[in-house]
Amino acid sequence: MSDFARPNDSSRPDARPLYAQVESILNGRIAAGEWPPGFALPSEPELAQELGVSHGTVRKALDALERRHLIERRQGKGTFVARQTSERARFHFLPIRDLEGHQTEPTAVALSLDTVPAGEAASQVLQLAAGASTYRLRRLRSKEGTPFMLDETTMPAAVFPDFEVPLNGQLTDELYVMYQRRYGVTVVRSEEVLRAEGATPELAGILKIAEGTPLLVMERRTWDAAGRIVEWRSSWLDTTRHRYVNVME
Amino acid sequence: MSDFARPNDSSRPDARPLYAQVESILNGRIAAGEWPPGFALPSEPELAQELGVSHGTVRKALDALERRHLIERRQGKGTFVARQTSERARFHFLPIRDLEGHQTEPTAVALSLDTVPAGEAASQVLQLAAGASTYRLRRLRSKEGTPFMLDETTMPAAVFPDFEVPLNGQLTDELYVMYQRRYGVTVVRSEEVLRAEGATPELAGILKIAEGTPLLVMERRTWDAAGRIVEWRSSWLDTTRHRYVNVME
Repeated sequence: MSDFARPNDSSRPDARPLYAQVESILNGRIAAGEWPPGFALPSEPELAQELGVSHGTVRKALDALERRHLIERRQGKGTFVARQTSERARFHFLPIRDLEGHQTEPTAVALSLDTVPAGEAASQVLQLAAGASTYRLRRLRSKEGTPFMLDETTMPAAVFPDFEVPLNGQLTDELYVMYQRRYGVTVVRSEEVLRAEGATPELAGILKIAEGTPLLVMERRTWDAAGRIVEWRSSWLDTTRHRYVNVME
Repeated sequence: MSDFARPNDSSRPDARPLYAQVESILNGRIAAGEWPPGFALPSEPELAQELGVSHGTVRKALDALERRHLIERRQGKGTFVARQTSERARFHFLPIRDLEGHQTEPTAVALSLDTVPAGEAASQVLQLAAGASTYRLRRLRSKEGTPFMLDETTMPAAVFPDFEVPLNGQLTDELYVMYQRRYGVTVVRSEEVLRAEGATPELAGILKIAEGTPLLVMERRTWDAAGRIVEWRSSWLDTTRHRYVNVME
């Protein structure tokens, strides 16, 4: 039986274009870990034959997966499941630049990691049962010894069992690299909601700034390739020496 | 002589993939107004023959132009040069949402429009000679009678000669729609740099908030299809009832 013939939840035929259905089947294999990071995909003709669709349809599906950074085509070598690179985690998913517009290479230190039952907000954002176990990680980013951003990340323990990081030392890996390497969780999308807010006494103490200093506050939700929300994050940025950059095109 | 044979500035052969060269030729026709908004493009076979490339190359170039919102394909009708829609100007290039995450439909009022010689900052950002003539437009956006965002847009007078808008009345069109309709200037890209800053006495007066209230400040540069920077904008957002939303994928 072909993948297309499987009834879906609503028992209605899938109305999406064929290439989108193929994209979604291949996405599913990556999300499930059946095709892990670094895996060499079958050739386009092999996929076309297996799925009973044209080469053109397979190519369009692969184009879409490539645009979503789930696969990489290497000239003359083939097509591979993409690894979450530090580069992409840092540059693309951390749109913070210094005043000259350069990507910043901050040090990140884990201040604390706690196991916390999900409260009302966390269970709603992360789509968890109230009281479900979560990890809460606080990290402080500094540049040349001056702290400029605190972030607090809440993750479902069911998605990241036995999560741990060294405390008070410099973290060498970005979280999204750890998610993929340790748990096979590939981050594909983040949505951030930004506001300005004065520093509370606690934040002022951590960031070493005056209480009430205007901060850029980011509330982030992050999705993995399987469509799950895998983290909820709040970040507080001191914009005296750093900025948030957004490109619209 | 084919377009490809034209020597470029560096007199070196163009090293980009063929489809990118085709994309750039077609982009040039749109940017120059040779193919105006709403224009029906020749068919893919016609373009392939004219440019001496394969159908596949033309299709890839059109895919790229479609992703950049410069053209639209309409099923069974053909391919057209896209019009800058109010929808895209408002939703895509104005990523401000209310607290429920809904796109806001603010009223915008032009407070002032002045002709100003470009100072050092403006001439640098807009790549103009110092003292070149610019327009400076101040607009105030409100929701249900409450102002929440001021913006100040600086435009080169050479790009937008005799620019005018009615003052103190509600503006019915977004600026980017006016740019295209009146001047044939199609906006394709904006880059915003965000910071938090306390409201100055002047901003506090205009936005009817307390002096020092933390505001989200956006500094924007905008490019047209010809690759020119066509505006520089500063915006001040009161984030009490509105947020800035950024999606990374």
